[in-house]
Amino acid sequence: MTLPFTLLIDPVPADSTRTNFDDTFHAIDSNAPALRVAELSTQRGDGIFETLSVVNGHPQEVEPHISRLINSARICDLPVPHPGQWRAAIALAVSQLPADGELALKFVLSRGVEAGPAPTAWLHATRASNFEAVREHGVKVVTLDRGYPRGVAERAPWLLMGAKTLSYAINMAALREAKRRGADDTIFLTTDGYVMEGPTSSVIIRSGGVYVTPAPSGAILHGTTQQSVFEYLEAQGERTEYRDVTLAELREADAAWLVSSVRLAVSVTELDGTPIPVDAELTRAINAALLARTA
Amino acid sequence: MTLPFTLLIDPVPADSTRTNFDDTFHAIDSNAPALRVAELSTQRGDGIFETLSVVNGHPQEVEPHISRLINSARICDLPVPHPGQWRAAIALAVSQLPADGELALKFVLSRGVEAGPAPTAWLHATRASNFEAVREHGVKVVTLDRGYPRGVAERAPWLLMGAKTLSYAINMAALREAKRRGADDTIFLTTDGYVMEGPTSSVIIRSGGVYVTPAPSGAILHGTTQQSVFEYLEAQGERTEYRDVTLAELREADAAWLVSSVRLAVSVTELDGTPIPVDAELTRAINAALLARTA
Repeated sequence: MTLPFTLLIDPVPADSTRTNFDDTFHAIDSNAPALRVAELSTQRGDGIFETLSVVNGHPQEVEPHISRLINSARICDLPVPHPGQWRAAIALAVSQLPADGELALKFVLSRGVEAGPAPTAWLHATRASNFEAVREHGVKVVTLDRGYPRGVAERAPWLLMGAKTLSYAINMAALREAKRRGADDTIFLTTDGYVMEGPTSSVIIRSGGVYVTPAPSGAILHGTTQQSVFEYLEAQGERTEYRDVTLAELREADAAWLVSSVRLAVSVTELDGTPIPVDAELTRAINAALLARTA
Repeated sequence: MTLPFTLLIDPVPADSTRTNFDDTFHAIDSNAPALRVAELSTQRGDGIFETLSVVNGHPQEVEPHISRLINSARICDLPVPHPGQWRAAIALAVSQLPADGELALKFVLSRGVEAGPAPTAWLHATRASNFEAVREHGVKVVTLDRGYPRGVAERAPWLLMGAKTLSYAINMAALREAKRRGADDTIFLTTDGYVMEGPTSSVIIRSGGVYVTPAPSGAILHGTTQQSVFEYLEAQGERTEYRDVTLAELREADAAWLVSSVRLAVSVTELDGTPIPVDAELTRAINAALLARTA
């Protein structure tokens, strides 16, 4: 099977006792139209997604991605996905895809066609971009105000913070703004100056010898790769911590990384125009460990 | 031609000197798949839209909708739409659609397929829901915090406030929250208590005999129907005003409306559980005037 690879999925209810889902999967030509214009994913950005990495035939962080998809569905009042069906879809895709190199496997659950009876879902796999250079050389980052004060997620759950929805126009605009400013990526701050996350990544800093990431409260996503990196660091005997991080602390960090499922860990080399320390050796070790996983 | 009606559109650059666009329009079966899963409209909610009303064969507020689409494109760094092409698309659709009753005509400009060369665009017409009862009896409304402080739009243009993007998951979630609270609709407030807009409507209040709507700064959309209602009121000799409106003022209003292109003007009958005065006669007159327009 060549890439891109697309599998349409008929979602089954979470409480289904099925164990075989083969008849719910329909491989289609990725270049062919697959969605109706009345799809709420396209009309309203009304759906959720996950993107996982497949490295040399091994899908990464399958359970954390499925768990987060289920959590996003709950936040968005979408029918809760059946974890077994998504495991089976990923396994089917991986069995049909090239077993060499790095792939990005996106899975989407949409509210479906407007006034339609059921959600729609699909899986779409592409060859990952070549991130070798950026993993080695890092990214220049600017901080951008996300517009929200800290704590708003808990007071206003309808803002869907903590869900990975398809409504990513702001995330994409923030990346364009970063490029306009001569940077490669951005870190969102609350209006009161707390570090949140990148538009498509989590933030980890090293401060006083401890690896710290902003606590995944209702306001930010719990990064699947951030969790993997923390597991790796803990196995090396390092201390990790979830807590609030201010912009001042980010600026004074011993090192900082953006981590995400497909690009993996990249060093922040410059923050708002000011160089910050880089631990190139550790970054290489983290990425080597992430790429070596077979489960 | 039966409804729904769908026209795929090949966008031409805004500076094209074309005057005939017929070969850029492709009518398709609305029930057929039309979009690829790699569409950024569906993957990222990355596109913009407008919804206009067609009443008895007459499309309403065509120029304000096209102007706002162009403004949204500028905010989102999308290729600026050619106004003549959109006028022609609307005219073509209307010429093929039933000339009786009320239709909703949505037009969408998406950033296109990921890594693709061009934006995608389409127009999708459906029969409007029957809004007679809600126009007559009004809606119960709850206020919900939009999470943003006043003034953030100007400081943080990457938040895309003021653009009508496809990333509407929050708007849809807010409507679900309103229903959960026993209401029909919602009005968004800034975190500091200023009235913004509804998820799919503008807010007009009558206060001290003056008709007031929150100033369409960068933070809220300039409602096409709100403008039409102001024109109607001004023609009746009434005073209208754009300015900040606080929640306290909304609570003490002589009357309040949500206005939008297809549902038109509906009275707010109850705000956060407290009845507010209703001017049923004026509401009927406004809607009669809006429905009588032939251009």
